[in-house]
This record gives sequence, structure tokens and C-alpha cells, in this order.
Amino acid sequence: MTQRPPNRRPKHAKGSGRPGPHGGPNVSLHGDTPDRVTLFGVHAVAAALANPARVVLKIMATENAERRVADAIAERKISVERVRPKDLDRLLGADTVHQGIAAEVRPVEDAELGALVERARGGAPLVVLDQVTDPHNVGAVLRSAAVFGAAGLVMTARHSPPLNGTLAKAASGAMEIVPIALEQNLARTLQALKAEGVTVIGFDGEGDGVLDAEPLAGALAFVFGAEGKGLRQLTRETCDRVCRIATADTLSSLNVSNAAAIALHLAAMRRRERGD
Amino acid sequence: MTQRPPNRRPKHAKGSGRPGPHGGPNVSLHGDTPDRVTLFGVHAVAAALANPARVVLKIMATENAERRVADAIAERKISVERVRPKDLDRLLGADTVHQGIAAEVRPVEDAELGALVERARGGAPLVVLDQVTDPHNVGAVLRSAAVFGAAGLVMTARHSPPLNGTLAKAASGAMEIVPIALEQNLARTLQALKAEGVTVIGFDGEGDGVLDAEPLAGALAFVFGAEGKGLRQLTRETCDRVCRIATADTLSSLNVSNAAAIALHLAAMRRRERGD
Repeated sequence: MTQRPPNRRPKHAKGSGRPGPHGGPNVSLHGDTPDRVTLFGVHAVAAALANPARVVLKIMATENAERRVADAIAERKISVERVRPKDLDRLLGADTVHQGIAAEVRPVEDAELGALVERARGGAPLVVLDQVTDPHNVGAVLRSAAVFGAAGLVMTARHSPPLNGTLAKAASGAMEIVPIALEQNLARTLQALKAEGVTVIGFDGEGDGVLDAEPLAGALAFVFGAEGKGLRQLTRETCDRVCRIATADTLSSLNVSNAAAIALHLAAMRRRERGD
Repeated sequence: MTQRPPNRRPKHAKGSGRPGPHGGPNVSLHGDTPDRVTLFGVHAVAAALANPARVVLKIMATENAERRVADAIAERKISVERVRPKDLDRLLGADTVHQGIAAEVRPVEDAELGALVERARGGAPLVVLDQVTDPHNVGAVLRSAAVFGAAGLVMTARHSPPLNGTLAKAASGAMEIVPIALEQNLARTLQALKAEGVTVIGFDGEGDGVLDAEPLAGALAFVFGAEGKGLRQLTRETCDRVCRIATADTLSSLNVSNAAAIALHLAAMRRRERGD
């Protein structure tokens, strides 16, 4: 299936629910503002350049790094500010794996839930994260979502990481591919999905059913909670069913991105088996 | 199935092939030596305390963190050195998520390949990593291996991360559960596995077959390469077959720990379907 570019509201737009310029430490990373975010890393910057919905304001790159994304830069007709690796160390922090390239970009608009439901009707599941706050985990989930052509990602507007450089680097380009919707009230969102005929399956180590036994047919949403905390009670109660991914009894807790990868892979496998 | 504690040679032991005290930056992290490694984080330390094969020399913990592992400490009859969070920041680096607890431990012995083959004959796959150097990725693979009761992990003695605190934290306790063998020559190791009747399946985005189509019966080894580089040519040629994990065409590269989680989950699912 083809992936449309994400359609994401700027973080300060009406109803986005994202923190504004005074919204806390999240927006101040690398000098990010609600209107301007710094991405870094070869895959993340190349994907941003290739995303027609993404406004790219500025590229800073070493000669070597520029060469690695030369085609995407030529396509954009954007000029590159030549920097040394230590300039980016200073801008982004010495521990940041920037690979010699960074881009200042505008946030892209949020996806509309209705558009994600239409995509889910095509058979690819929606992934819903219930207050998963770690940007590396969310980035890894996005990457799996892109790999398996998921319909999109739904996150809570609060208690989710900002869609910034750290998340984009972990997503390795997938932040530009997977449509993302930010929702104020997750239980209400899940109710809306159910009203549209989407089967909402929550995942939890203590779930009643086992993923393997799920038919995984029709429009699907897979809901994952944060590590340790799991699904919030209201989230869990709103799901059609709560499943576990059957595991050995020695260690029962899968990383959230691994759980999402397993569920998305099985859904794609079942679609192929049915010839959907 | 039950998991035996790992049996792992000290890093300086004859034939282990791990770098010695002068072997490079890997062994000097947090002042680690070949005989003494500092683990940190609640899960990693609790699992080390619970592993009878692990010699624990010293526990440093805040009052809160000690309370979280109180049972495991009582079981060991070990005394705890009271520290403040900033003491651990200083010891481990300010960016380290130590959760208020660290342990100085002795490395445990490597597993013998023969013992891993015996375990693989029970139906749980062996996981083999071909020069995967990132400790977070290896830790995440270990965690999935523990969750799905894999027979063990085989890594190259060189070009693998040290079995230290960073890896143990990412593995969230799994480093104490999954037997690990370090091998000098991976192609020769895969040949030895094949001679013992183990089916060796490599994974690569460009593989000929698709994972779904594999019967996944009998003794199995799953071989994964590093991100970007993939399997080395000789590794690939030595595998019985090379598979891909079928994906959407937008982004074909799965993170190695997600690929391992998918393959281990499917193998466990096939075993249950067959009633093994």
C-alpha cells in the first residue's frame, strides 16, 4: 500500500493540545519553538526533504553529510549552510548523533482522525499510544508503523513526546511517512473509532486473550501503554478486547516498540493469508 | 520452558576473544575492568541479585531504590552502601538512568555452544548476532530473547558490545537470564550448528524467502546483522536460507530488535500451533 505524507497541525494551532512556547521543557530542546523544530541525522533529514508536506527552512551540513542527501537537496532547490561537526555538537549537544547534518523545519499539520479511519478501512491497523512518553520508544514504534504500512499513529496530546529531532532520529525517517493524530481525550477517541466500526484491541501482559487467536480482520486499532504503567484503566475498559502477546514465563514485559512490531507483522501476515 | 542462568567465561579468560584491560574504550566504561563490571538500574540489579551464577561484590543504593529490590538483597545477605543520586551521577555519568541503584559484579562465564544447541533442540530458537555493535540494540534483542524463551544468544567475540551496565540496562534483567556464547569465527560457528542439525536462517531485507513461509520446526538459529551493514557476505553464504520479513514498500529497514522479536514470536506461535 502507499503511504500519504502526514497532515499535521502546527503545535500551536487551535485544538492541537500541544504545549505552547511556555508549555514546559519539551519545546525548548535544541531551541525548538512551536513554529520551528531542528531535525538531525541523515535518514531524518533526507525524509523531511522528501516529504512535500514539510517546510524546510534551513539545512546545515558537513560536506560529507551533504553528499549523502545530495539528491533530496537538489530536488528541493535549497542551499546548504556548511558547518563543521563541532558546530552541530554545540547546537544540538555533544551527545547527539547528528551524523553531520541538521535541518530547521516547520512542524507539519496533525492528521485528522477521520482520514486515519479511512486508511484503517483499507486493512492496515492504526497504532494508538496511551501516554508513551519516551521519544525513543515512540520513534521506534513509528518506524515499525512505516515498515508495515500502518494506517497512522494516534497519541495523546499531553504526555506524549514532542515531534522533535530526538523522536525523528529514532524514527529514522518514519515521522515523515506515518500520519500522526494528537487527541485530547483518548477514551473518547477510542469510542469514536468503535462507532466507525474499528475494532479496538488493547495490549497488556495481563490481557484476557492471546494475539495469535485474534482474527485481525476489518479495520483495526492496536493500543499500547507506556512501559511499566501499561494501559490506563479507562483506556483498557474502552477497548473492545485486551490481548497479551504470549510469552515465556521468565520475563513477561516486551518493549512497546517490539510489541507493536509483532502485532503489525501478524496483522500484515493475516491479510496476506486471506489475500486481502 | 525454563531458563537456566547463563554460564559465561570472564572476559579475560583463555579463548574468550574479548578485549583485555588494554582492549579499547569498551572495557573502561564506568571504570569497568575484565574482572569487575558496574551494573545499574532497578531491573538489571534485581536480576543480577537473583542470578545464582552472578557474583555481586557491592550494592550502592538510595533508600528508595533499596526498598524496590529489598527481597533480592535479603536473599543474598549482602549489605548496601547508602548513596545519594548525585553520587551515582558522578560514578556513572550524569546522563545515566541509574534509578538510584548500582552494583559491582563479576562477569559470569560464557555459555558453551554445545549447551545452547541442546536447548535449541527443545524447540526455542537460538539468536545469532553478526557484529551488532550497539549495546542498546543488543540489550533489546536479549530482552525479546528472554520474553520468548530463546535458547540463547551467540555473538562474535569481537565487534560486539561489552556485557556491561549499558547493555544490562537496555536488557532490563534479560542479561542474567539468556545464556550468551561469544564466538571467534561466526561462519565456523554456523557450520558447527548446521552439522548438529540446526537450521540456520539469516534475515535480510533482500532475502529470497519470506519469514511467514518458513515452517520454523526443529532446532533453529536466527541470524541478524547490524543495522545498515546487514549480514556479512560469508555469514549470509553460510546460512541455510536467507529470509526477509515482508514489509510495506515505503521503508524496508526494521530495527534489529524488532526483527528478532517478530521472528521469535512467530516461531513460538508455530510451536503452539503444532502443539510442540
